[in-house]
Amino acid sequence: MKVTVHRKAHFNAAHRLYRKDWSMEKNDKIFGKCNNPQYHGHNYELITSVTGEIDPDTGYVIDMKVLKDIIKEEVEEKFDHKNLNEQVEEFYNLNPTAENISVVIWNKLRKRLNANLELEVTLYETPRNFVTYNGQ
Amino acid sequence: MKVTVHRKAHFNAAHRLYRKDWSMEKNDKIFGKCNNPQYHGHNYELITSVTGEIDPDTGYVIDMKVLKDIIKEEVEEKFDHKNLNEQVEEFYNLNPTAENISVVIWNKLRKRLNANLELEVTLYETPRNFVTYNGQ
Amino acid sequence: MKVTVHRKAHFNAAHRLYRKDWSMEKNDKIFGKCNNPQYHGHNYELITSVTGEIDPDTGYVIDMKVLKDIIKEEVEEKFDHKNLNEQVEEFYNLNPTAENISVVIWNKLRKRLNANLELEVTLYETPRNFVTYNGQ
Amino acid sequence: MKVTVHRKAHFNAAHRLYRKDWSMEKNDKIFGKCNNPQYHGHNYELITSVTGEIDPDTGYVIDMKVLKDIIKEEVEEKFDHKNLNEQVEEFYNLNPTAENISVVIWNKLRKRLNANLELEVTLYETPRNFVTYNGQ
Amino acid sequence: MKVTVHRKAHFNAAHRLYRKDWSMEKNDKIFGKCNNPQYHGHNYELITSVTGEIDPDTGYVIDMKVLKDIIKEEVEEKFDHKNLNEQVEEFYNLNPTAENISVVIWNKLRKRLNANLELEVTLYETPRNFVTYNGQ
Amino acid sequence: MKVTVHRKAHFNAAHRLYRKDWSMEKNDKIFGKCNNPQYHGHNYELITSVTGEIDPDTGYVIDMKVLKDIIKEEVEEKFDHKNLNEQVEEFYNLNPTAENISVVIWNKLRKRLNANLELEVTLYETPRNFVTYNGQ
Repeated sequence: MKVTVHRKAHFNAAHRLYRKDWSMEKNDKIFGKCNNPQYHGHNYELITSVTGEIDPDTGYVIDMKVLKDIIKEEVEEKFDHKNLNEQVEEFYNLNPTAENISVVIWNKLRKRLNANLELEVTLYETPRNFVTYNGQ
Repeated sequence: MKVTVHRKAHFNAAHRLYRKDWSMEKNDKIFGKCNNPQYHGHNYELITSVTGEIDPDTGYVIDMKVLKDIIKEEVEEKFDHKNLNEQVEEFYNLNPTAENISVVIWNKLRKRLNANLELEVTLYETPRNFVTYNGQ
Repeated sequence: MKVTVHRKAHFNAAHRLYRKDWSMEKNDKIFGKCNNPQYHGHNYELITSVTGEIDPDTGYVIDMKVLKDIIKEEVEEKFDHKNLNEQVEEFYNLNPTAENISVVIWNKLRKRLNANLELEVTLYETPRNFVTYNGQ
Repeated sequence: MKVTVHRKAHFNAAHRLYRKDWSMEKNDKIFGKCNNPQYHGHNYELITSVTGEIDPDTGYVIDMKVLKDIIKEEVEEKFDHKNLNEQVEEFYNLNPTAENISVVIWNKLRKRLNANLELEVTLYETPRNFVTYNGQ
Repeated sequence: MKVTVHRKAHFNAAHRLYRKDWSMEKNDKIFGKCNNPQYHGHNYELITSVTGEIDPDTGYVIDMKVLKDIIKEEVEEKFDHKNLNEQVEEFYNLNPTAENISVVIWNKLRKRLNANLELEVTLYETPRNFVTYNGQ
Repeated sequence: MKVTVHRKAHFNAAHRLYRKDWSMEKNDKIFGKCNNPQYHGHNYELITSVTGEIDPDTGYVIDMKVLKDIIKEEVEEKFDHKNLNEQVEEFYNLNPTAENISVVIWNKLRKRLNANLELEVTLYETPRNFVTYNGQ
């Protein structure tokens, strides 16, 4: 019996969407007001979804306290109250779109989970815009 | 790396559930108070989900501003503040259940998206009743 | 010790904003697309707030089951799945704006509550537009 | 055209996470404060998702009133305002984790639905912790 | 310039509504299924609202970190994952209705705040039932 | 009959909490990680509440389209996708705490509304932290 367990977490951060190798004009054309050189920011809501067999001893797929701590170490402590472009290494040369952030988070969490567990992340940039990535 | 991007939109509309070729009694039996001949209405919440490869240049699967405009043209401008049965062509001869509305919206949006993008729509008729359609 | 107890309820309905004694042009100018002669509709969310002393015997300001039944009889059974303009007597000659609906609901509930209880109603027409009325 | 229809329901209940065949120390170590011998409780939110072909006569996958009644009989009447460990037979010898509750609910609903309909349940234990099960 | 700052917190707990000095029949009549002798439970959501002048040095009415810690010490650590009737002293002889819980919480928080700050608490027992108390 | 009408709006922005006339150490001590010199950010949700008599002609306290446009001009166009400290004049020398932002917004909206209308603003910095200001 494979069950998916979901855990919500939160971080807020500043970011700017742009490419260093493009002109200001091109960045403005593609990224609009998201290319503000002084940054803007979001309250990001993250749903981490882990799929696996229920452990018959505990009734858990994964101990939520363990999952919560992994999310805290890998995401919240690294991203919360940070400027993603300037202070989070993975985005020094990667545009911090919601899509790219979800892939970076997936890769960070994937390394911390047993291989027999499947992983999907859903990241809300705003209540109206969100993305999902499952490693495929 | 395939990511799904989701965009929420909103419209409100009047509708009535019934079949013109059924008697009032039969419509009442099947559709209950949804068969009110004077109509009732809903705030419909629509989540449009588009899956595709991340464009390495932009970090986008699809530009959200483009997707937002497509949803506006195909759904909001056609459905918002309308009587679905009387004023939206697709429902002149199709019962506007949430299921049928989701299929109609999917078909309208599908035509506007590149063939390499997958599409799913989720439509909330009320906060407690909603449907999902992905073209299969 | 005065406490306010709040109860959420729900109804959905069709309506049209217009005045019978105005021309179509004037109604269009003032009420825009809300003046659709074929109606549109909403999921209305109602919060009924009742303030009073805690009964030392029960620990209740008012029995929620009693309050729930009053709301059901006075609001849900009268408004749910109805066309407000055509099928709810109070709006035969009163424009069913959120403001006016909240006053009508307040008056209907006020009659059913003990005089020592204060009443306020909050009515969501959409998640973005809502109104509050407390009888003053 | 296969569409998924979703219906939200609610119940609240007390529970305790522990195994009768483990010591208090071991239960404390594994289940922490969820092993409170005097119980704690939750507002559980349940989303029942049923996938099938749209009936061309009605425009429904399944009549929501029918689905609502099945959920009421199988889940709400059995679980609501109950102590899951002590008063719900399925958990006399099964630890009522969210994972196990979702499997129990799925099995109860599965028996009531036509074989050509697919079923998935999502159960929120808190707004931050939830699980999904689809029988696989 | 008086501003109100609001902070949300969460706890879940088991409880039973009844009076020890009433018969089972009378408790059943008044409290219905809330009188389950084996308890039921809720996810309680608490909004703590503090009103005062903005400190011109900091721009704060009260440091949210300080307020968050007070709520944690006075409410979360005392109520979370507890049986209110059996394990929270204030309810040994007080029926734990939402009304009474809100008054108990208000009194506990009031003692920890400067006298020049006003306090109101809103407590959600379920998403549909909630109460507000401000000490008057 | 005085009714309050509420309208939700949204903007996202970067900010930093600090005082230019304080040392980095003092700012760190008071504002913690909110004093990140590279900024962080939020999705701000704004509820604008306007109280007044219902116009007997229209059934409106204020035309929501008019209110929506005032909020757009005064708040969204000035604050959305901006760095509050660096790009919004009012915060060049005022710490952009939620409290101060709410007062600034209130003052901007107050000037645009008729004197017979009362105004209150509620500003969510995160779903857990929010403030209310009504000019008193």
